[in-house]
Amino acid sequence: MYKKHYSEIELEKVTIPGAENASIRWLIAEKNNAPNFALRMFELEKDGCTPYHSHTWEHEIYTLEGEGAIVTEDGEIHLKPGDSALIAPNEEHNFVNKTDKVFKFLCVIPIPKK
Amino acid sequence: MYKKHYSEIELEKVTIPGAENASIRWLIAEKNNAPNFALRMFELEKDGCTPYHSHTWEHEIYTLEGEGAIVTEDGEIHLKPGDSALIAPNEEHNFVNKTDKVFKFLCVIPIPKK
Repeated sequence: MYKKHYSEIELEKVTIPGAENASIRWLIAEKNNAPNFALRMFELEKDGCTPYHSHTWEHEIYTLEGEGAIVTEDGEIHLKPGDSALIAPNEEHNFVNKTDKVFKFLCVIPIPKK
Repeated sequence: MYKKHYSEIELEKVTIPGAENASIRWLIAEKNNAPNFALRMFELEKDGCTPYHSHTWEHEIYTLEGEGAIVTEDGEIHLKPGDSALIAPNEEHNFVNKTDKVFKFLCVIPIPKK
């Protein structure tokens, strides 16, 4: 059993190119002996975004606070608290804050198999 | 891309023996083409609980609303909003509401491989 409040977990700046005013907390990760998937919390400040990209794994999203969007090839999907979303493997996407307040969401990803 | 607000997803009563005043919404599931894991929201009403049991898969938990506990062989782990928890495979556990208000949490599980 592993338990922590999110505020006890380090808020790390997302430094990959294309990320702006974006931070992440790894709530439950491989280092905590998670066998299959990692639970992360993203915090996008005003004008915050993650890089527009695609990858071979999915995202499962749950929106906690603020309002934002998932940008896709087909347009923007608005996210408000209580919205969940599945971004399928290989779908182009990024996350964008749409207000002056923090946009906070959970994002689950698979842990690569060794 | 699949997106829904949790309120648009059916709240199903948990009917397995040992569950009391417990309901679930399958926010993202295999039927939505989730490749690896399912995102569910549990709602335990006053005196609500899930059955005390163990299984070969893990739970990753994020507490949204109310207060409750994970009961384990080693005692109770209190959960308040913002708490995340990992219940490892084969750990005995259940969830119990600890107040008169609804206790709402997310619970991610792996989808069995075919």
